[in-house]
Amino acid sequence: MNVTDAILNRRAIKHYDPTHHLSEEEIEKLLSLAMQSPTAFNLQHWRFVLVRDPAIRQQIRALAWDQAQITEASLLIILCARLSVWEEPQRYWSKAPQAVQDFMFPAIRAYYQGKPQVIRDEAMRSCGLAGQTIMLAAQEMGLDSCPMDGFDFEAVGKVINLPEDHIISFMIALGKKTTDAWPKPGQIDYKEAVFLNQFPSA
Amino acid sequence: MNVTDAILNRRAIKHYDPTHHLSEEEIEKLLSLAMQSPTAFNLQHWRFVLVRDPAIRQQIRALAWDQAQITEASLLIILCARLSVWEEPQRYWSKAPQAVQDFMFPAIRAYYQGKPQVIRDEAMRSCGLAGQTIMLAAQEMGLDSCPMDGFDFEAVGKVINLPEDHIISFMIALGKKTTDAWPKPGQIDYKEAVFLNQFPSA
Repeated sequence: MNVTDAILNRRAIKHYDPTHHLSEEEIEKLLSLAMQSPTAFNLQHWRFVLVRDPAIRQQIRALAWDQAQITEASLLIILCARLSVWEEPQRYWSKAPQAVQDFMFPAIRAYYQGKPQVIRDEAMRSCGLAGQTIMLAAQEMGLDSCPMDGFDFEAVGKVINLPEDHIISFMIALGKKTTDAWPKPGQIDYKEAVFLNQFPSA
Repeated sequence: MNVTDAILNRRAIKHYDPTHHLSEEEIEKLLSLAMQSPTAFNLQHWRFVLVRDPAIRQQIRALAWDQAQITEASLLIILCARLSVWEEPQRYWSKAPQAVQDFMFPAIRAYYQGKPQVIRDEAMRSCGLAGQTIMLAAQEMGLDSCPMDGFDFEAVGKVINLPEDHIISFMIALGKKTTDAWPKPGQIDYKEAVFLNQFPSA
């Protein structure tokens, strides 16, 4: 499937065939592609929790407005990020020439050290980038998807044993739809979203 | 181009042919596709500033570690978000049935009201989703791209007249590459990024 069609056909799907199963190969392909998504300074801070255990799905559904897709979808991915990756840049730059490492490591430290909001922004942004990779790849693989942030983040973190220096960004349900999405409820005009050079002066 | 190839071929490209021009049609296609990216509650808060004026590009380059791609690329997109969209949900749900509106509007208010960090997280996440849409669509259109957050956000905000209730998430340079990307400097193992059901107990 070409990229344009994948973008145009993707909709947030709420109802899935609970008997549909993803193969191990499909799951690994999807996540390997997700790991090709860009991260600032190549720090690869995303962490993907694949929730396959039905009992854990039920627990999460109860923490997420009882949304059916959480238990009906073939796969539920919780996109998380590890916040402390910037402290060990050598782990992500081992194949770079020494001169590049000598330039990058102090730059990485200067960018993140003592800046928790910058670190958190990065986590949310990178998980967004990786999430769209997953949803468009899923589309090509004949799967539907639903991005979700309507849940109790803290309680879901406890359910999945979220380590202390990690945060949750959002979740994606994936599978075979049984019901189409609603017609789009309203789309803003191109001119409301796209500006040339600058925002207009107030 | 299929989705898998677009994902695998995308790399952050730093050097572009400054004589390459994007047509108005290409630009409009790219941004129209970006606007198909999902947003929570369909609030479509992303705002895209297309910086085409060479003088403004120079100003931004000076605020971004003098990175060459900022002036050499065919297009520079600054991905921003409007933070106050949740206050007017009727603007984004006008085509939905009344019953859906009656359910959604209080839910939207409850989700965002008085929660500036939740609103900010949403902005970063949505711009990440839209940014990957742009970069994968660009790949299909024969264009290269570079996502960037190495710049002075506040100073760039002044340059583009960023309105008070907006924030910048990141920038993307787009164009025709003249130099390939470095070999990947290091990739973490699948097992470091992907977990089954839960993170392991500490």
